[in-house]
Amino acid sequence: MERERALELLQAVQRGELAPAEALESFARPPFVDTAHGRVDVQRALRQGIPEAIFAPGKTPAQIAEVVRALRAEDQPALATRVAPEVAREVQALLPGGDYVADARLLWFGPAEVNLRGKGSIAVVCAGMADLPVAREAAEVAQRLGNKVELLCDVGVAGLHRLLAAVPLLREARVLIAVAGMEGALPSVVAGLVDKPVIAVPCSTGYGAALGGGAALLCMLTSCAPNVAVVNIDNGFGAAALASLINRL
Amino acid sequence: MERERALELLQAVQRGELAPAEALESFARPPFVDTAHGRVDVQRALRQGIPEAIFAPGKTPAQIAEVVRALRAEDQPALATRVAPEVAREVQALLPGGDYVADARLLWFGPAEVNLRGKGSIAVVCAGMADLPVAREAAEVAQRLGNKVELLCDVGVAGLHRLLAAVPLLREARVLIAVAGMEGALPSVVAGLVDKPVIAVPCSTGYGAALGGGAALLCMLTSCAPNVAVVNIDNGFGAAALASLINRL
Amino acid sequence: MERERALELLQAVQRGELAPAEALESFARPPFVDTAHGRVDVQRALRQGIPEAIFAPGKTPAQIAEVVRALRAEDQPALATRVAPEVAREVQALLPGGDYVADARLLWFGPAEVNLRGKGSIAVVCAGMADLPVAREAAEVAQRLGNKVELLCDVGVAGLHRLLAAVPLLREARVLIAVAGMEGALPSVVAGLVDKPVIAVPCSTGYGAALGGGAALLCMLTSCAPNVAVVNIDNGFGAAALASLINRL
Amino acid sequence: MERERALELLQAVQRGELAPAEALESFARPPFVDTAHGRVDVQRALRQGIPEAIFAPGKTPAQIAEVVRALRAEDQPALATRVAPEVAREVQALLPGGDYVADARLLWFGPAEVNLRGKGSIAVVCAGMADLPVAREAAEVAQRLGNKVELLCDVGVAGLHRLLAAVPLLREARVLIAVAGMEGALPSVVAGLVDKPVIAVPCSTGYGAALGGGAALLCMLTSCAPNVAVVNIDNGFGAAALASLINRL
Amino acid sequence: MERERALELLQAVQRGELAPAEALESFARPPFVDTAHGRVDVQRALRQGIPEAIFAPGKTPAQIAEVVRALRAEDQPALATRVAPEVAREVQALLPGGDYVADARLLWFGPAEVNLRGKGSIAVVCAGMADLPVAREAAEVAQRLGNKVELLCDVGVAGLHRLLAAVPLLREARVLIAVAGMEGALPSVVAGLVDKPVIAVPCSTGYGAALGGGAALLCMLTSCAPNVAVVNIDNGFGAAALASLINRL
Amino acid sequence: MERERALELLQAVQRGELAPAEALESFARPPFVDTAHGRVDVQRALRQGIPEAIFAPGKTPAQIAEVVRALRAEDQPALATRVAPEVAREVQALLPGGDYVADARLLWFGPAEVNLRGKGSIAVVCAGMADLPVAREAAEVAQRLGNKVELLCDVGVAGLHRLLAAVPLLREARVLIAVAGMEGALPSVVAGLVDKPVIAVPCSTGYGAALGGGAALLCMLTSCAPNVAVVNIDNGFGAAALASLINRL
Amino acid sequence: MERERALELLQAVQRGELAPAEALESFARPPFVDTAHGRVDVQRALRQGIPEAIFAPGKTPAQIAEVVRALRAEDQPALATRVAPEVAREVQALLPGGDYVADARLLWFGPAEVNLRGKGSIAVVCAGMADLPVAREAAEVAQRLGNKVELLCDVGVAGLHRLLAAVPLLREARVLIAVAGMEGALPSVVAGLVDKPVIAVPCSTGYGAALGGGAALLCMLTSCAPNVAVVNIDNGFGAAALASLINRL
Amino acid sequence: MERERALELLQAVQRGELAPAEALESFARPPFVDTAHGRVDVQRALRQGIPEAIFAPGKTPAQIAEVVRALRAEDQPALATRVAPEVAREVQALLPGGDYVADARLLWFGPAEVNLRGKGSIAVVCAGMADLPVAREAAEVAQRLGNKVELLCDVGVAGLHRLLAAVPLLREARVLIAVAGMEGALPSVVAGLVDKPVIAVPCSTGYGAALGGGAALLCMLTSCAPNVAVVNIDNGFGAAALASLINRL
Repeated sequence: MERERALELLQAVQRGELAPAEALESFARPPFVDTAHGRVDVQRALRQGIPEAIFAPGKTPAQIAEVVRALRAEDQPALATRVAPEVAREVQALLPGGDYVADARLLWFGPAEVNLRGKGSIAVVCAGMADLPVAREAAEVAQRLGNKVELLCDVGVAGLHRLLAAVPLLREARVLIAVAGMEGALPSVVAGLVDKPVIAVPCSTGYGAALGGGAALLCMLTSCAPNVAVVNIDNGFGAAALASLINRL
Repeated sequence: MERERALELLQAVQRGELAPAEALESFARPPFVDTAHGRVDVQRALRQGIPEAIFAPGKTPAQIAEVVRALRAEDQPALATRVAPEVAREVQALLPGGDYVADARLLWFGPAEVNLRGKGSIAVVCAGMADLPVAREAAEVAQRLGNKVELLCDVGVAGLHRLLAAVPLLREARVLIAVAGMEGALPSVVAGLVDKPVIAVPCSTGYGAALGGGAALLCMLTSCAPNVAVVNIDNGFGAAALASLINRL
Repeated sequence: MERERALELLQAVQRGELAPAEALESFARPPFVDTAHGRVDVQRALRQGIPEAIFAPGKTPAQIAEVVRALRAEDQPALATRVAPEVAREVQALLPGGDYVADARLLWFGPAEVNLRGKGSIAVVCAGMADLPVAREAAEVAQRLGNKVELLCDVGVAGLHRLLAAVPLLREARVLIAVAGMEGALPSVVAGLVDKPVIAVPCSTGYGAALGGGAALLCMLTSCAPNVAVVNIDNGFGAAALASLINRL
Repeated sequence: MERERALELLQAVQRGELAPAEALESFARPPFVDTAHGRVDVQRALRQGIPEAIFAPGKTPAQIAEVVRALRAEDQPALATRVAPEVAREVQALLPGGDYVADARLLWFGPAEVNLRGKGSIAVVCAGMADLPVAREAAEVAQRLGNKVELLCDVGVAGLHRLLAAVPLLREARVLIAVAGMEGALPSVVAGLVDKPVIAVPCSTGYGAALGGGAALLCMLTSCAPNVAVVNIDNGFGAAALASLINRL
Repeated sequence: MERERALELLQAVQRGELAPAEALESFARPPFVDTAHGRVDVQRALRQGIPEAIFAPGKTPAQIAEVVRALRAEDQPALATRVAPEVAREVQALLPGGDYVADARLLWFGPAEVNLRGKGSIAVVCAGMADLPVAREAAEVAQRLGNKVELLCDVGVAGLHRLLAAVPLLREARVLIAVAGMEGALPSVVAGLVDKPVIAVPCSTGYGAALGGGAALLCMLTSCAPNVAVVNIDNGFGAAALASLINRL
Repeated sequence: MERERALELLQAVQRGELAPAEALESFARPPFVDTAHGRVDVQRALRQGIPEAIFAPGKTPAQIAEVVRALRAEDQPALATRVAPEVAREVQALLPGGDYVADARLLWFGPAEVNLRGKGSIAVVCAGMADLPVAREAAEVAQRLGNKVELLCDVGVAGLHRLLAAVPLLREARVLIAVAGMEGALPSVVAGLVDKPVIAVPCSTGYGAALGGGAALLCMLTSCAPNVAVVNIDNGFGAAALASLINRL
Repeated sequence: MERERALELLQAVQRGELAPAEALESFARPPFVDTAHGRVDVQRALRQGIPEAIFAPGKTPAQIAEVVRALRAEDQPALATRVAPEVAREVQALLPGGDYVADARLLWFGPAEVNLRGKGSIAVVCAGMADLPVAREAAEVAQRLGNKVELLCDVGVAGLHRLLAAVPLLREARVLIAVAGMEGALPSVVAGLVDKPVIAVPCSTGYGAALGGGAALLCMLTSCAPNVAVVNIDNGFGAAALASLINRL
Repeated sequence: MERERALELLQAVQRGELAPAEALESFARPPFVDTAHGRVDVQRALRQGIPEAIFAPGKTPAQIAEVVRALRAEDQPALATRVAPEVAREVQALLPGGDYVADARLLWFGPAEVNLRGKGSIAVVCAGMADLPVAREAAEVAQRLGNKVELLCDVGVAGLHRLLAAVPLLREARVLIAVAGMEGALPSVVAGLVDKPVIAVPCSTGYGAALGGGAALLCMLTSCAPNVAVVNIDNGFGAAALASLINRL
């Protein structure tokens, strides 16, 4: 159960609109559900504020659908990441109604509209067009988790004027997500221009010494700006989840 | 100039207590100061909310003193990190008045008391006693930057009951810093127990496959909890600076 | 020859049911058999208690069949691991009668029922659904080697309650196998909850800093729990073989 | 409290030699003790069968003494590993009575004689004289944890006859610990000669491509013998602890 | 020109069977030939005793044929390595007459029979069936370069008896090539049994910590036997070429 | 706008052939153009002397065409690198007129003839035929950027005479680009023969310990020749761009 | 002999001021000189335009003095790099007259004044004060090789205004050297602001994920600016040598 | 017993100078001797043609002396490598008579003169003066094992003329050892100039990307010359031992 939903239930009880016994039913459900292949954590949203996401690679469409079903049965939204188009189609064939966002490789089962829960906006900036899929994943997830999001692409540090032109937009954000592959210098430069937390996402774009995102990762970890923290390579989802929690503070 | 100090000046002008021309003097100073060896960023506190810290290794005591002087001349606190006791003594001989915190290896020149600027408390948890110097650096810096801090040591994941006993304390915090060396599993477990941002600090404690903190770093980056971001190995200062900015939101 | 079979022969001689000369025939066979492509170790079961397994990748179906035939001719079970479905089909076309377990990628030629040789049960726990193929390999092999096996999936450390709910089951086992990819923290937490040996299997699931299982491997090697030892990435077979030997003690 | 001690208490109650209320006193103590610097796990022996060991590097003699005191106060033996001679001297000055084993770098506070708890013997074999300190750590710890131990040095694989001469001794052991640096081939060869579990300990001896034990570690993880599992580089303590648990089965 | 061919020419001149002017023609040819895409070293056989080999991956069939033609025009044998079957077919379509050895992935243009130039035999041993393609490459090349070759497969160190049974064969060889993937311990053990040079070839077989042959490579480089030297991963050709030069001494 | 074009405009104004207002129009355009997916840097040629290149991998044909259009609209040449044949075809279907150079994987939209802007010639040398695609990329780009280029292939260091025969050609060049995979020794040897800057390009050709170009990269970075600098693995474009800027000095 | 000196000799001959026989004496000297320990390349300056430098670490003061003597005997300047103060003192005791520059760790034996040979100025910029020793090495060497040099420190990318304030100075340079440790982003940003070659020098400053300069190295190699090439970590000498050759073009 | 000594005994028997029973005494001794700390392989010289060498680091002077004594008691020479001067002094105090070669860090106990057993000469070439200790170790060991040795220093590939001047000397050798740090290109170039086996020894000289000899190691393993094999970093002893065996063929 999402924290918000739990609060609604309790308020309904307070207002006399819901019998305590009936509310209890909702609360007394076990914190996980055993399916054919595993144990689904159906209270992560309640405990961590972020619903459990399904990392699609390595799972069959049937397994993905199984977890989605378990979550939906508990009134939770279900979000699958890194979903290839053909996998999405197969899951949607098994379980109609999902919303597939191709350029962010996300499959969403839940309300089309979400309440705004973040207090300010989240800015997602990315260095080059090759980093766009990861930036889009971050932006899309942040939006589905209840945030206002600004996305800005192609502001690599070798053409500073493009980034400097965006400074006002950056300064407006309450939290920033900076996505970059190759040399991964963007978060350091962005962080120097704002006094807000910057979540850095290294990208696996690039070749040779880029080491599949490793160079960007190291570069971000060693940033000389004190307001940068880093998530895993290509982990747009994680960056968005964390930014959402910060934006709710 | 620190943001807070700038606001005070402007409010003094508003209240008629300070002549605009006099205030101007303060504001018109250039954003950096050239010293014998380098260009000191004296407006970082204004721009990023966190005063510039001096990373001591590789600098001579004279160079450290030089930067401290430039910052103090601009009414900023000065904070040097990773300061060995003998270096601290030499700097303090050149520039009396600093406050040396031995177990956190910090040298602070600034007001003894700082105003509370963080809205909630920051919890610093560390896995084992060997991680304590880094955890102490984080705790001490967070306090100097205006936060209420709780420090908890020796709650490694192989003895879960010690950590579980601390859950209420963890849940009270607005931001958490989790410090761990060796296998670095602590942040993942902590993050699963709260719905707040967790900043993970890998520690260079350990041997062999610990790779000087590299194993913990990789472990933290690949955490299956969505509310974890990572800073550089042993970077207690960075974690505290970032946590402070988040705690001011 | 398997140790058990050797004992049976000797007991038959003791009981006068088998002529020594006839028994000798069985024992006098050379300890390896030269086939078209190699030298098959047909006494590994006798020497090490575990029959030689055929690692399928890089071998042609004909080569796999060749080794199976040599082992079966010596009255040994034959077990091929990492067998892709199409390879299994080709081997079974050449050599009817094998049993292919698709989700564990195992191909087994031997008795359908095996005698229970382990003294207690082996618990196989895995962190997430993506680790299931490796966990299934371990569970299936352990069973074929004569053990009672309990398999538990989706008990990752970021949702501790799922794992804690399974503590009674873990405490019942005589040996434990803990399978995890990404940050690989599961074995450390499991080992802290029991006083039995835990064999850790890192999984190649994950992306970016997971380094194809390398992060989990390092994490497990640096576990602060003293009752953990590690096998190669994805090596469900090895974990099961070792657990079987321990369970026979 | 050690498991054995707990059993004694309960048996004393059964025999009427100890009043339940008095026994309760012993059991009702909290599972950890907070000292000046950390939270000591005083029930690890009860929970995991192995008392908590103190990894000395990075701790001050005062901190080591503090943990020893906390453990001794709970009637537990205390074992510190990797203790340099001068550190041992300082701890023993603070806390008389410990037993320092120089060639194994161990400092032990506890009974001089321990009861034999292992059912068979543990064989510790090491490839060369440079691996001896790690092998000695393993042997000494195994003995203190209640096992009969055989130690055999200088049986590297480039002089097979030395190892082959020791086969009878190896076959007698119930568990084996194989310690090797450089190319780390010893555990594979040993494992092929026995049908018992072999715990491999890579050593940081060697130079160049030995990568501080990394080459041996990789070699052991990829062993083609199915009865090998690996612990961290130079981790003689861990190998002995695990071997002890197995030897008690 | 091959050294042998050069000697023949000079001897023919000595015997009066060849006019010096005619011989000069052969010698006066430039030491390389420029083709459409590169500069072919047509005197490597003369200079280094081994004809230039064509590493096929990354070259088009047309480019391979171009180099073969240039070498054949200078009366040199041409040898292409790592030739996929379809590439071999295309080259042979462009340039009839070559001899394709599928299991060693070699394409040879030259005399069907070569003179024996090595003084003794070369033994090629390999640890497992998965290493066979590399071992076959080494054996086949050594034979084409004029050596008597013995190939022995499946003598991995975890089943020592298979290797020990082959000791007489190993002791007969003048040079040995030991091929092994996974933990790569074979060359160390082999080298301890003979007093001849052993060339170690790490194989890319294996998974996880085998690091694509990197574990075997490190293991071989750190061998405690003093008579081992190592070539690149999977470099059967190089091992054979070097062994041939040694066998001619 | 390219620097050259800007100069022409200003000279036209000087000569009275262009009205200042009209010229202003050209100069007043913003330094970047926002397209559907990103922000194109249309003044890089003006600022850095080298037009922005489009790294094709990870971009759709539509995205490539979009950037080309934005650059052409600003009178700039557009150059896409690493363009697979099928991608080139799709881009050319969307945007007729480009020139695809298959063996260098380049797609060029711009004038067929470029003015010579380099003061001397650039020599591109490569070690073997497998390095040819990268060498061709470098040569082709250098030519399109206005340089006279000499390309020399197959001059690896194991056949020095081929390289020594080319010394006069190398000494004529004003800047040199040395391309090599495998051991990457070519740039060191070349640099020792000339007194001009040498730009080293490691190639991803090779296998095993070549580490996808990593061995060559390390070798080039540690060259004992003082006139060598290195670019990323396979980065023929970067080497050519840098060489062009140097050749214009 | 330095190229310049050779030209002077030839011009003296041309002007009739020097007898050809006398000039011949100078030219006929062998291109290297054998000393007690090695073969000194006394014509590197003639061949490569840069005199041979002596890398001091690993050489005894006596060996350094030996090489200096050999070079001075041939009328060449001698430059030793990475010279510790005590080593410098010992060499100067053996060989009076050298000039030791402590903060750049250089020991120079040669004319106090050098002719300006570079056509423009070289700008050396470094990110932080910890990078100063390397930047000073580069600046000092460039000056001794005949260049006008501008050195600018503390212009890290997290405080862009400091760098932007220096843009005019950067644009004036004909070649730039950018020195940075930690994340190494400076060269990318600098390169985006100029149209001249930028030589990037990664620094071993930093800790943890900085990997002793490895992170900066990777970051610089993957720079998205096309006018950057990289030299080895801390190689201020190499950057200066290369920049000097470029500045002479 | 050394092979040569065994032959002498047998020949004495043949000549009637030694009673068979007496000779038997010598042969019947066990193949290893157990000392206080380990098992010394006293027949390695007989089995492998090379006496066992004692790698000094990590052994106490007493342990070294213990092994020397065991070997000398069996009439074998004893050779300790990597012996620091103070360790040599301590060993020699315990066991008079050894010969310490300081610049090669070798301590030799055995006959002052050894018989020439190699059929030709071994050439040891090294790239720079910093590689001299390793080259000296190789040269000195080769000499003590009965070879004629030529040592040539400072022939790095960036000054080819120095190497080319030595070609006649290289061509005379029967086996070559090429020692190089930094980029490690020397063996490839040397191997291209001769038709004999070249043993490459990477050196740990250098800094930064030299990775403590790792760059040179990779470079040598990927050499495009087919007559190169590689030993561990700094392993001058191993190269000499292997070269000796080859030179005896």
